[in-house]
Amino acid sequence: WSLVEIDGVKRLERVYTFPDFSAALDFTVKIGELAEDANHHPQILTEWGKVTVHWWTHKIKGLHRNDFILAARCDGVY
Amino acid sequence: WSLVEIDGVKRLERVYTFPDFSAALDFTVKIGELAEDANHHPQILTEWGKVTVHWWTHKIKGLHRNDFILAARCDGVY
Repeated sequence: WSLVEIDGVKRLERVYTFPDFSAALDFTVKIGELAEDANHHPQILTEWGKVTVHWWTHKIKGLHRNDFILAARCDGVY
Repeated sequence: WSLVEIDGVKRLERVYTFPDFSAALDFTVKIGELAEDANHHPQILTEWGKVTVHWWTHKIKGLHRNDFILAARCDGVY
């Protein structure tokens, strides 16, 4: 995970790679499920062979402990 | 759909809105399925209540007739 800043808001970013589009989309769905379970939702960019995930907390316009926990959970389902 | 240019490459872009994250993710999966059927793949940004789709053709670094066809199909499953 790396720290990026977009419009003045710090986010956690990680790019996951896959052999094709379908595997990328399956991972996007897994991330979506764990996000729903936690009621905390990332931005997920799905494209051929690649998924980019961004975590941050809108309410505080930055990073909360929860973002780090969810980032770790994403790694767990990769 | 609107025309956007990113890194000198023209793309078709549309933002679809939804009542929550789960509905957005369901739409992302639908787009993924029609992309797989056509063997032509977009960039899909999924977030809470919103899905942004980008179509373009890597091989020609721009827009092909196929991009417009797939864009129309996305509207069809919205």
